[in-house]
Amino acid sequence: MILAYPMPPGEEIFERISKLKEKMKQHKIDSCLIVQNVDLFYFSGTMQNGYLFIPLEGEPILAIKRYAPRAIIESPIKKVREIGSVKDLSSVIKEVVDEIPKKIGIELDVFPVNNYLFLKQILFPSEIVDSSPLIKDIRKIKSAYEISMIEGASEIAKKVYELAEKTLSPNITEMEFAAFLEAHARKWGHQGYLRMRSLNSEALSWHILSGKSGATLSYVDAPAGGMGTSPAFPVGAGFKKIKENEPILVDFITCYGGYHTDQSRIFSVGRLNKKFIDAYEATLKIQDAILKEAKPGVSCETLYEIGVNLADKLGYKNNFMGPRDYQVNFIGHGVGLEINEFPFIAKGHVYPLEAGMTFALEPKMIFPDEGAIGIENTILITDDGYKKLTDIKEEIIEVKKE
Amino acid sequence: MILAYPMPPGEEIFERISKLKEKMKQHKIDSCLIVQNVDLFYFSGTMQNGYLFIPLEGEPILAIKRYAPRAIIESPIKKVREIGSVKDLSSVIKEVVDEIPKKIGIELDVFPVNNYLFLKQILFPSEIVDSSPLIKDIRKIKSAYEISMIEGASEIAKKVYELAEKTLSPNITEMEFAAFLEAHARKWGHQGYLRMRSLNSEALSWHILSGKSGATLSYVDAPAGGMGTSPAFPVGAGFKKIKENEPILVDFITCYGGYHTDQSRIFSVGRLNKKFIDAYEATLKIQDAILKEAKPGVSCETLYEIGVNLADKLGYKNNFMGPRDYQVNFIGHGVGLEINEFPFIAKGHVYPLEAGMTFALEPKMIFPDEGAIGIENTILITDDGYKKLTDIKEEIIEVKKE
Repeated sequence: MILAYPMPPGEEIFERISKLKEKMKQHKIDSCLIVQNVDLFYFSGTMQNGYLFIPLEGEPILAIKRYAPRAIIESPIKKVREIGSVKDLSSVIKEVVDEIPKKIGIELDVFPVNNYLFLKQILFPSEIVDSSPLIKDIRKIKSAYEISMIEGASEIAKKVYELAEKTLSPNITEMEFAAFLEAHARKWGHQGYLRMRSLNSEALSWHILSGKSGATLSYVDAPAGGMGTSPAFPVGAGFKKIKENEPILVDFITCYGGYHTDQSRIFSVGRLNKKFIDAYEATLKIQDAILKEAKPGVSCETLYEIGVNLADKLGYKNNFMGPRDYQVNFIGHGVGLEINEFPFIAKGHVYPLEAGMTFALEPKMIFPDEGAIGIENTILITDDGYKKLTDIKEEIIEVKKE
Repeated sequence: MILAYPMPPGEEIFERISKLKEKMKQHKIDSCLIVQNVDLFYFSGTMQNGYLFIPLEGEPILAIKRYAPRAIIESPIKKVREIGSVKDLSSVIKEVVDEIPKKIGIELDVFPVNNYLFLKQILFPSEIVDSSPLIKDIRKIKSAYEISMIEGASEIAKKVYELAEKTLSPNITEMEFAAFLEAHARKWGHQGYLRMRSLNSEALSWHILSGKSGATLSYVDAPAGGMGTSPAFPVGAGFKKIKENEPILVDFITCYGGYHTDQSRIFSVGRLNKKFIDAYEATLKIQDAILKEAKPGVSCETLYEIGVNLADKLGYKNNFMGPRDYQVNFIGHGVGLEINEFPFIAKGHVYPLEAGMTFALEPKMIFPDEGAIGIENTILITDDGYKKLTDIKEEIIEVKKE
């Protein structure tokens, strides 16, 4: 059991800030104001409500609305100030810079327009530019500490999948089974709340879909959507009862110390028919073919193409990564403090893999009205290849009929 | 058990749209583009990924990126179009209006800057204005259908609190207890995922705090924060073990058909000391004094002041709604599709209560290093008074020591 209250090391926080300053210099941005909670945690070690101001020259300063005493304990940043509202920001900023910055970077990919318009009045006459590409670029390479957190999440996941094998039985609903597994995951240290960047993105642990649910699409940019519980939450586990002899996709994300791991396995109660078993074998082949090439220097798009081409060759052109006309354009997505971060193993993502990148690789097949088949592991790119961070057996997990 | 896949009635959706058109007319906005998922569900009945365009004159049209076949089933809106990307929006809009709208309302309280700047290019030469005040104003009054959904959530909550009484025992962690309750809530129909509007707002069911955790503040604008599981999720239940004779705040939100209900009760294993019992009695008195005046026409701020004044009079000036220097400025918040919506029973909220408003009323006391005490119920304002939607006994729920 890995219960803890894990806190990132102080040196690591300063290292991250110095990487950001490097990028700011390149982009001629003389300061950054970190506004989003995940980025705030990444660069300060605390997620208390407030802002982190990072000048190109000089010390960073944390302006906390609520709750400053906790930010002081959690963050290695020395200057922490308590503010009543965003209006106090400019006086806090003046404490660490001699003159008002010319160009302030803010995460404009998530910062709401009203907040922006208000801040423009306060920070006048600074020009506000988008800092999110810089931040995403830094966050895509994981440190040893970050990898240890993802490994912690994977350790919890391993126990979840073992428990699933021990307890799966037909006639419970997808949600009941998912909730049972999640309760145990939390007992073992899973934080419960997941994070996905951008407006309307909502992440959930309980993506457990049985039979035709696995072929039910939804708003989410994923090969398999799921029914969910109502049109107001139309994704993931629903009220369908799990049956015998149907593929059960257990796509269960865990999170430890803020870091996610994403994995899927196929379960069944009794034997699956040959069609599903063959498709599963195909996803394993695709996974292996991709991983064989996974190492620093190889383009993400190349890995994607290896997967798509092999799926075509194996006869799954209309099933791979979604049903015909609704296929997604990726086979993998970065995981870290968010589950949709760089790198994306996807069409158009032509940058190279680098050591320290972590991503979920998820070759999946969808059979309309029948179900989803596939495997997913969380992968770390190492100096000369890759390492699977997921330690769960890879065969179809078949449990006996009652 | 109320498992279902509840869908709002079609007439209700059209009624909401017509209310929005009324407000658009008043504010001289000739169209609205609904972009946020919760608002999209409210005005269309579906939460598939896309946009709802509502012209002042003429039919609304849904432009869905993913997954249109499901939007067609779920929404009563007749015109549903599939789009590849946001770039296709203007051609969809042209289908229902003769000329490009002069003024488009968008929810600028949540819409990110980058999306806004991109949309401005596409929708040029329309002026984009903030539609969120109009939408929030409409959403603050609940229909009979919406109230029935909140009642559904309350029905699940009642079972959660009964289960908590039956199963609470010392030496389990807050998170373990919370996760156990949540697993059952989900089995009974709780959707699991909660919603809170605005950047960095994250809502959780598992706000279960024992002893000094109840006095641990955090980023969240609430009287009691909780430790959470790491600085990356520093709120709600943590790894502290529940002990005998300490106040245990079970502040557990449930959600059904997208609608929330929010309630809290104090539990203890063995007797609480007189200080806590007296404080609890005081919160009940405050609740009753506020509810006595709760009816249409009374200002929200008036209710807030009744609470604060009575707390002062009863000797809890430095404990009410947070510890000294960190008290929050509200005693209640609207609940519906989000758990921070209008009305706010708060300082400065001088608008009157109206029939159909639903809010959580939560008089609470914080004792530094000792714990949180309080009660919370979800309240409906009726034509001539109020109705408690929460049906859970109001005494301290004391379970026997082992």
